[in-house]
Amino acid sequence: MKGTLVGGQEGVIMMDIALIAVIVSLVGLAIAALLYKKVISVEIDNPTVAGITQQIQDGAMAFLKAEYRYLSIFVAVVAVLLYFITETDGHLTALAFLGGAVASVLAGLSGMKAATAANGRTAMAAQNEGQAGALAVSYNGGAVMGLSVGGLGLLGISLVAYFLGAGDEGSNITHAAGFGMGASSIALFARVGGGIYTKAADVGADLVGKVEAGIPEDDPRNPGVIADNVGDNVGDVAGMGADIFESFVGSIIAAMVIADSSANMNVDYVILPIFLGLVGYLASLVGVFSMEFLKNGEPGAALRNTTFIGAGLFWVVGWFGIGFMDLDTGTDPMIAVIIGSIVGILIGLVTEYYTGIEDVFGLKPKAIPHIGQMSKTGPATNAIAGLSVGMMSTFIPIILICFGIFGANHFMMDGHTSSSAGGFMPEFGLYGIAMAAMGMLATVGVTMTVDAYGPVADNAGGIAEMSGLGKEVREITDGLDSIGNTTAAIGKGFAIGSAALTALALFAAYSAAAGLGLSQLALSDPKVVIGLLIGGALPFVVAAMTMTSVGKAANEMVNEIRRQFGVMREALRADTPEGVDLEVVSTWPKVIEHKGTSYPDSAKCIEISTDAALKEMVGPGVVAIIAPVIVGFALGAPALGGLLAGSLVTGVLMALFMANAGGAWDNAKKAIEQGHIEGAQKGDAAHEAAVIGDTIGDPFKDTSGPSLNILIKLMSIVAVVIAPSLTITGWL
Amino acid sequence: MKGTLVGGQEGVIMMDIALIAVIVSLVGLAIAALLYKKVISVEIDNPTVAGITQQIQDGAMAFLKAEYRYLSIFVAVVAVLLYFITETDGHLTALAFLGGAVASVLAGLSGMKAATAANGRTAMAAQNEGQAGALAVSYNGGAVMGLSVGGLGLLGISLVAYFLGAGDEGSNITHAAGFGMGASSIALFARVGGGIYTKAADVGADLVGKVEAGIPEDDPRNPGVIADNVGDNVGDVAGMGADIFESFVGSIIAAMVIADSSANMNVDYVILPIFLGLVGYLASLVGVFSMEFLKNGEPGAALRNTTFIGAGLFWVVGWFGIGFMDLDTGTDPMIAVIIGSIVGILIGLVTEYYTGIEDVFGLKPKAIPHIGQMSKTGPATNAIAGLSVGMMSTFIPIILICFGIFGANHFMMDGHTSSSAGGFMPEFGLYGIAMAAMGMLATVGVTMTVDAYGPVADNAGGIAEMSGLGKEVREITDGLDSIGNTTAAIGKGFAIGSAALTALALFAAYSAAAGLGLSQLALSDPKVVIGLLIGGALPFVVAAMTMTSVGKAANEMVNEIRRQFGVMREALRADTPEGVDLEVVSTWPKVIEHKGTSYPDSAKCIEISTDAALKEMVGPGVVAIIAPVIVGFALGAPALGGLLAGSLVTGVLMALFMANAGGAWDNAKKAIEQGHIEGAQKGDAAHEAAVIGDTIGDPFKDTSGPSLNILIKLMSIVAVVIAPSLTITGWL
Repeated sequence: MKGTLVGGQEGVIMMDIALIAVIVSLVGLAIAALLYKKVISVEIDNPTVAGITQQIQDGAMAFLKAEYRYLSIFVAVVAVLLYFITETDGHLTALAFLGGAVASVLAGLSGMKAATAANGRTAMAAQNEGQAGALAVSYNGGAVMGLSVGGLGLLGISLVAYFLGAGDEGSNITHAAGFGMGASSIALFARVGGGIYTKAADVGADLVGKVEAGIPEDDPRNPGVIADNVGDNVGDVAGMGADIFESFVGSIIAAMVIADSSANMNVDYVILPIFLGLVGYLASLVGVFSMEFLKNGEPGAALRNTTFIGAGLFWVVGWFGIGFMDLDTGTDPMIAVIIGSIVGILIGLVTEYYTGIEDVFGLKPKAIPHIGQMSKTGPATNAIAGLSVGMMSTFIPIILICFGIFGANHFMMDGHTSSSAGGFMPEFGLYGIAMAAMGMLATVGVTMTVDAYGPVADNAGGIAEMSGLGKEVREITDGLDSIGNTTAAIGKGFAIGSAALTALALFAAYSAAAGLGLSQLALSDPKVVIGLLIGGALPFVVAAMTMTSVGKAANEMVNEIRRQFGVMREALRADTPEGVDLEVVSTWPKVIEHKGTSYPDSAKCIEISTDAALKEMVGPGVVAIIAPVIVGFALGAPALGGLLAGSLVTGVLMALFMANAGGAWDNAKKAIEQGHIEGAQKGDAAHEAAVIGDTIGDPFKDTSGPSLNILIKLMSIVAVVIAPSLTITGWL
Repeated sequence: MKGTLVGGQEGVIMMDIALIAVIVSLVGLAIAALLYKKVISVEIDNPTVAGITQQIQDGAMAFLKAEYRYLSIFVAVVAVLLYFITETDGHLTALAFLGGAVASVLAGLSGMKAATAANGRTAMAAQNEGQAGALAVSYNGGAVMGLSVGGLGLLGISLVAYFLGAGDEGSNITHAAGFGMGASSIALFARVGGGIYTKAADVGADLVGKVEAGIPEDDPRNPGVIADNVGDNVGDVAGMGADIFESFVGSIIAAMVIADSSANMNVDYVILPIFLGLVGYLASLVGVFSMEFLKNGEPGAALRNTTFIGAGLFWVVGWFGIGFMDLDTGTDPMIAVIIGSIVGILIGLVTEYYTGIEDVFGLKPKAIPHIGQMSKTGPATNAIAGLSVGMMSTFIPIILICFGIFGANHFMMDGHTSSSAGGFMPEFGLYGIAMAAMGMLATVGVTMTVDAYGPVADNAGGIAEMSGLGKEVREITDGLDSIGNTTAAIGKGFAIGSAALTALALFAAYSAAAGLGLSQLALSDPKVVIGLLIGGALPFVVAAMTMTSVGKAANEMVNEIRRQFGVMREALRADTPEGVDLEVVSTWPKVIEHKGTSYPDSAKCIEISTDAALKEMVGPGVVAIIAPVIVGFALGAPALGGLLAGSLVTGVLMALFMANAGGAWDNAKKAIEQGHIEGAQKGDAAHEAAVIGDTIGDPFKDTSGPSLNILIKLMSIVAVVIAPSLTITGWL
């Protein structure tokens, strides 16, 4: 595409950088493999811990196998469709799509394997080696995920760019969007299916085990408990990983497509995102490696410092490296990158302010005490308070995202107008927005490590509790868990902020790929408005579908657990001598304690819940892929642009609203339990109301909210893929 | 403005039509006054009914007085600001603003006075004259509101157009937007304040009276009960009236501004909306008058037929009248009008399908049974089900609105391209959208009559119950109430649909007034995207503010009722002889029954609740007015365009979501009470869960949801008013 601007030299540089990126990412993946070996080398010398760890890992693999069985059909069908739909060289888009799907699957598999292996081993390390050892195991467990996501993302996109000859004359980088679409499809299914899974297991296990049978929460004899634990990994590790993976490659693809489509941007702009991804990944490797030296210090500082080392290195090396490139805008893209990072951090802190119990930078949170107080007058006022906190919490993050857009656009446009080309060229500003997204994503290797560390430390605590490892162990794991919270909040901020900016950059890439001029995306065109309204409604539809699905899936889970308990009861009855009162014998605790019965079939339970989750994820997935196709072909490219903008706006808002409302309800309940709310305590009516709010929030924060982040990115990337086939007016 | 195109003749026609409209609207207002006299001529020969009626009317007036005291300051300040802000002839905008505010206030006052007078008289007529008499009284009570809204709207806008010399050379119709802004400001305060008021009174009276003191609901000895009844009128009559008033004048203004700003549209397009308003009002008068002949038939058919007569006459006369005008598009505007009407009706039916218990056109509603079933597993699953029903219910209405936009645009563009002018002139399509809005609004005289009839019949039933008027009376009022439901649903559909289309038309008017070309409203301009995101967030913010306000205001109400009960208890104690057990004497029912105490001070209670509501309404009102001003001046006209589009999308969606979720929760509770949900009944756990859902839905459907309709219109009209003062780039 860049033919007119490309000299031989730039072409060589492009190839060089892509090849270096391939090599570096392979090195990074090798390091991830070594870290995994290091994690599993920790011996589990406690049979209970070993058993639970094995069960969770088996369960997680059972879920992934079933998911991939399902998805392989989907991926094959879509690949064939892409082959035929894509106007020219359909095989390239189809292959890139397969590559993206496979890379996302591999990242999910390795991360999940490592995280589930590290859970129990962190608990063991806490017992045998103390805090530093436990920190290292959990951090390394997370690092496998972090380095896999970063490495496979960089590897895949570099290979795609290399084989497409990105930036060369006659090349068409739009095919690379296929890679992003593959990654996004897997991500949506992982998030939606995983989200339904984890909440179905959670609700099902609690309802039958805790409420009906009266056995304690997290009792391993409840066949749903392993599913619940698997669900935590599925949601927090695999779901988050797939989400970030897709944002990472999406922001790179968006920047490449914008640059490639512009007559005013030279080939170095096409290279730049891969270069930044490369620098960010190298910086992440250093950051992750630095934990070896930091682990003996204060764990919170250690965690933060690995991130800071990664980010700092990225900024410095990026700044000097970019200076050597031939860019009209000089080092301005790095300003956009830095703005993006800062916005991500601030969104995380604001999220923490609205959903957390602790002070944020000396500011006393008001939301949690408010919900706590409103719990005293019952579940209705608790629910209203949670909903309004969630709605209110959208505003500052949106303003921060706007600051990010404004700043990135401003500095890039500013740098550009001082260049030789001159004139109003919005593509520079839009490219800057993709750079801001990269600011939150380039060091994904280390940020995702910290994200995945959190659930590992959390689950380690759960396993320690279930296995009775003693108070000292629990204290260490609790400590490691709690220091992960603020970092996790910042991780969430990065996820939401980068999703918004990536979707926006992809939107810009779409309008470039579809060849839409400024006047063809006018808000005063009724077709654009129609797209805007339909796009705006889709997040509401998907949120409604996923919430309903959680209910249905939980119901199937309940039935399966009841069935197993029934079998166990029959076994007990068969073993009971004549004359013994069956009514007394067959109380649930007795049934479950009866050693002669078949053990609970957790795998069956997991399979049932998995199948239900996967069945339920089809609807939202189809909506996400079909909606842009229908609107694009029927109403034309401008209407599809409107759809993307509309879904971006309500998608980001609904994602913030639902995630934060859910988080706030959760912590309001915890605040009452921990005595932070005057006049309320565990077990009283206010607490009961807060528990109800927490349950409303479960599908909000763990299913629907996170799904929306992916929905908007997936629809955007589908639009980029089909852009060349669309017309301005559409069929109607 | 139209100078170049205007011949002397058109100018004369403009003046003629405006003057005829003034005369016709004065006649209509006179008829409204006669109908009011007719209503109050019904004698109330039952002292209890008379007392309650008087108390409700006094309470309503107390609310309105306090509200207008507040608003007079606000209106004065804004008028002065408008005088200085408006670039040229600021006094015209300021005067129009005052006119709009006064007209809206007068419509609210007269409608409220008539409705509160008709409540008790309908009950009396049911007792003394039977069904036909009761139908006539309640219908006439509603008709005062309907004819006042239509008449004052038409009168005001015609006078403004007349004095501005609309369409003449050198005239600037943009000043007419001041009238819309005045009406919108009053509407927002009426809806937000009224919504907070009604729910605060409802919750406060129930919590202290029913729950704490154990006296029955609607017991007139509870000082909060009158406030609760007043609240019903405030919300359903005055709030709805102000909302529709503003849509009506907003759609006329939008069409006039679009036509006036376009070089391709002649002066007849400027006249057309007033002409259609005039025809619609005449048709409404006939429709309302036809009740005299229809009242002895089946009441449901009578109600529907008055509407159909009005609509049919409007269509026929409009179609032929428009044929005489000199329009490039021939009778195509009437096609847009008819499309608008049909869309409004369909939205109403869909709303009924999602929130109602009865079949809609043979389709069995699934939402209410779903929520009912989910109530069995507790309040959390009930809440989740209600929220997902609300979210899902947004989709079809949005698609219908899109059909309306598409159709209106299509036929207008189609008609236009066959004209002499040729080329792509989106203003014709946008004008068509304003016409579609008029399709739902021109016959406001009769549709608003039916809207206001509903609460009158409902309150008549309440008064009959409280006064012990007997079963026959109650049967008549219940019958009249229930037949109003489907018509009310269609009224709601009109309110939401017309709000969306009016806001969209005002958005188009804004871009015309600000002189924004197609390329200046491009979604690929980062500033437009920033506006879009901020605009999208505002409905979330306002929804959060209003929900929180309901909680606060309810709290103040609770304290006041407790204080009064305390005074009454002291009085009882003072009258109690020594030796009697105070503990027994001072149970609440005994305190309240004690005749010697001071009567409950309902007026004080109303005042407190009114003040709280008015205090709480300031925040959302300020946001709605300040946000477009800040964004417009700071970021420029395109960013403000983005803000309007963003708020339109999320505003309509959130309004639909909240209104329908609230309605569905309410009816799910009723469905359980009426035995429609298998395995659940009044008083069991499922019912308790459904009551909690209903309470969550209260501020959803009666405060936050309806406020959002007005928010988007108010922001749009503020934008039109400030449009001439804005620059493209803004200060930043």
